This record gives sequence, structure tokens and C-alpha cells, in this order.
Amino acid sequence: MVDRGLLESYLHANIPLSAAMGVEVHEWTDKAVTLKAPLAPNINHHRTAFGGSISTIATLAAWSYVHSCLRLRNVTASLVIQRHEIDYRLPITGDFMAKNREVSKADLDTFFARLSKRGRARLTVESEVRFEDLLCAAFTGQFVAMRESGQD
Amino acid sequence: MVDRGLLESYLHANIPLSAAMGVEVHEWTDKAVTLKAPLAPNINHHRTAFGGSISTIATLAAWSYVHSCLRLRNVTASLVIQRHEIDYRLPITGDFMAKNREVSKADLDTFFARLSKRGRARLTVESEVRFEDLLCAAFTGQFVAMRESGQD
Repeated sequence: MVDRGLLESYLHANIPLSAAMGVEVHEWTDKAVTLKAPLAPNINHHRTAFGGSISTIATLAAWSYVHSCLRLRNVTASLVIQRHEIDYRLPITGDFMAKNREVSKADLDTFFARLSKRGRARLTVESEVRFEDLLCAAFTGQFVAMRESGQD
Repeated sequence: MVDRGLLESYLHANIPLSAAMGVEVHEWTDKAVTLKAPLAPNINHHRTAFGGSISTIATLAAWSYVHSCLRLRNVTASLVIQRHEIDYRLPITGDFMAKNREVSKADLDTFFARLSKRGRARLTVESEVRFEDLLCAAFTGQFVAMRESGQD
């Protein structure tokens, strides 16, 4: 079991933009992180969700998932995003959710084996942004984890 | 000549996230829009600029450029982002800038001709995010403009 409030406090304390966006942790399991955000602080000139907010919450969901994978395995590593792409498919006219797609056990095992052996490993994570169950944006990000010195 | 304050007020009034990020319009010419943002509201857990903020300011610079091209030609159109990709190359440890790369006259002419003829046209715009003249992130976005009904 993982603590939603703990992740939400971590995000708000360390990434103030997540607090400005009103990002909440809706669900956190060992398979996926689901974040939600209200429309008001994320609105644009069309009265729909701003692309920057959509991209940011998709990034946060994917990042939070890898962050939680590292924590659940007690691995201390620095985690950064290297690149991402996002397709905006439908306008969002209300509060919205972002959730990572599940990463296969094989990909996760490879990631952790490389990280242990080489001190550095890359993981591709997809996430989806939905409004009322409609897929409104599809995100793919490459994240790099680096073991901190002194870790085995 | 275009008015930096006007664009900045428009962004802050219509896209509240730009105000939360402290985005300012540093320069606005007919060739490029340069935005800047302070580190503090855009920081992450590594004490560097958060990827979501970097992606957002890159999006805003590219979007603002197309928005200004439309205004300068007195074309009223709805403008949305369709997709983007971004490479994060270097960490950002202070205030940062985003500026679109110049779009060729040929590409702009094609964009406006299509928009006039078909009522809809797509334009690819690149932008760069820099910290102290270092290229820290490279963004490419596809934007779609749609003429509003009643326009000729």
C-alpha cells in the first residue's frame, strides 16, 4: 500500500507548479498513479484546458509512477525526464485526470537490472489524460534514473 | 511594432498558469517572441527548472508567435496545439528564456494561403529554452489555426 497524501505533499512541496495547478493524487497503486486537476487554474483562452497544463499533468503522472517504483524497491536514484512527446486529441472542458499506462514487468526488470549494474538506466513511460473517460491527450516520455554515489 | 505588455496581459488574463509561472514577455518582434520566467515558481525536487514548466514556456513562446502572426495580418482564427515533442538537454539552475525559431516566409505564406482557402491550416514551430545562453531544451510543436465563421 502506498500513501496518496504522501505523494501529493511531496509534489506540492517540491514542485510548486503542481500546487498552482491544483494537482491531487486521485489513486496510487503499484501499477499506476492517477492525478487529477481542476479546470479553473488550468484554463486557456478557449475556456478549455491549456496544453501546457495537460502536458505537465501527463509528465507528473509518468514521473510519479517511476518515482514510486523506485521507492517501492527502496532504490535511491535521481530521476529526470529526457524527452517527451504528446498528442492533443480532444479539448478538455472540465476537471481532468492523468494516469500512466502500466509498464511491463519485463521492461521494469530490465530497467532495475541496468540501474543496479551501470548506475544509470532509461525507462519509457506512457500516460493518458482523460476528461469524462474520453482520451484527450496521449503522452510518451523517456526518463533517466541515476543511482546516487554510495548506493549499491 | 508590437506591444509586449499587451501580450503579457493577454497571457496572464487568459492562461492563469502563465501568471503562476511568472512568465514575462521579454521581447516581441515580427520574427520572434521571447518569454522569460523566474526559477522559484518553476523549481523541482532537484532545485532545477521543472520539465513541465520548461515544456509550458516553450509551448507559450511558439503559440504566442503564431498568435502574433495572425494578429499582424488581421486574421481572426482559433489557434490550438495539436502535438509537440521536446528534448531536455541541460538542467536549468536559474531564470530562463524561451524563444521561437524563425519560421520561413515560404512556410508562413503557405500557412496563410491554406488558412484563407480551406479555413484551416497547420504550422510547425520550433522553440528553444535557454539558461545563460545555453540551449537547455528544444521544442517542436504543430499548431492548427481555424478561421472563425463569417471571416473571409
